[in-house]
Amino acid sequence: MNIAILGTGNWGTVLGKVFTTRGHRVHFGSRTPEQKQEWAAAIGPSVRVSTYQQAAAFAEIVIVATPWPDNGTVDALRAIGSLPDKILVDATNALRADYSPLRFEQANSGAEEIARLHPEARVVKAFNTVSGHTLANDGLRFGETTITGFYCGDDAQAKQVVGALVQETGLSALDAGPLKNAHHLESMGQLLIYLAFSRGLGADSGFAFLHHPAA
Amino acid sequence: MNIAILGTGNWGTVLGKVFTTRGHRVHFGSRTPEQKQEWAAAIGPSVRVSTYQQAAAFAEIVIVATPWPDNGTVDALRAIGSLPDKILVDATNALRADYSPLRFEQANSGAEEIARLHPEARVVKAFNTVSGHTLANDGLRFGETTITGFYCGDDAQAKQVVGALVQETGLSALDAGPLKNAHHLESMGQLLIYLAFSRGLGADSGFAFLHHPAA
Repeated sequence: MNIAILGTGNWGTVLGKVFTTRGHRVHFGSRTPEQKQEWAAAIGPSVRVSTYQQAAAFAEIVIVATPWPDNGTVDALRAIGSLPDKILVDATNALRADYSPLRFEQANSGAEEIARLHPEARVVKAFNTVSGHTLANDGLRFGETTITGFYCGDDAQAKQVVGALVQETGLSALDAGPLKNAHHLESMGQLLIYLAFSRGLGADSGFAFLHHPAA
Repeated sequence: MNIAILGTGNWGTVLGKVFTTRGHRVHFGSRTPEQKQEWAAAIGPSVRVSTYQQAAAFAEIVIVATPWPDNGTVDALRAIGSLPDKILVDATNALRADYSPLRFEQANSGAEEIARLHPEARVVKAFNTVSGHTLANDGLRFGETTITGFYCGDDAQAKQVVGALVQETGLSALDAGPLKNAHHLESMGQLLIYLAFSRGLGADSGFAFLHHPAA
């Protein structure tokens, strides 16, 4: 698939590398693409970096992996223009520079804010509960158990595509319901950051949802 | 220990049974204790049921396991009176009758609302991310992995006591930080309810936080 990743931070870079190794074409979007040509080439031979708009136009799936402070995410979302019916994956955690959660006037989560800004796109929340270290290690293994890749959204077909992509990265993909459940996934993203970094348990970590078959 | 459980619902009943089998004395608090004497005797020979206030006065640890609709939780919290320095464990999920989350004017989570109503007590959030089925089965086993019992609070000594109690039930106890992180645990409680019941994955399920040792 042709995948755009908006943002060139460490976490998005890992995600791009993982997709490249799975045979996808990855195109990063950046505020300053001219400064990042060498950086992109180092990730993989088919990796490109261009403006947010060019990257989004190239892709079937656009993944938002920008920081929210300094309008990073909002500016990127404005720059890409209208994306009718395109799949827009919110992989962000809507945090301030001090890691405290952002609150939105008209939405209960970052993903719902993105859906409000892009009502023409099909928004799916995914990947935000997973550390870069876990992504870089095929979803991590703990005995028989793999870290869960939770995703949610309101468009069934878009969720199916994103769920398959999540599973491909090595995570155990789990449909976590409608887009309003993004609030819960964003809470888990914040808790992961707390446990891994503030509490010092490390990024070699994550959440698994475990269940035996329903009776 | 002497443990009070406020509320006589199915989930609290399971918790009481687990504590009883671990050798603790359990005293339930109820709005209508006179109607519940036989019910209490069936749980275990040392189990008692009385008013909220009597149960709280008896115990070293008071566990809130009441429903929030119809002022269930707020009435119980009023009825127990002042509990200076006592450990007050919020095991609830602050939901409306239709399972949508309650919002508080002056608090970001049910646990913080409880701390606001009982500033003299030492409030710890615990158990709310765990189904009754998991509690009834020693924390469940999935190969080497056990469901995590997340807890959080602002009083280190109270957290230590509650953490030991969580671990005793068979869960893998994990200190999830300050009381403001109760917001995240309550989100996880809501997601568990969604996955287990709305999505139908079943109550034989739960979240595990997995981590390899930090480098």
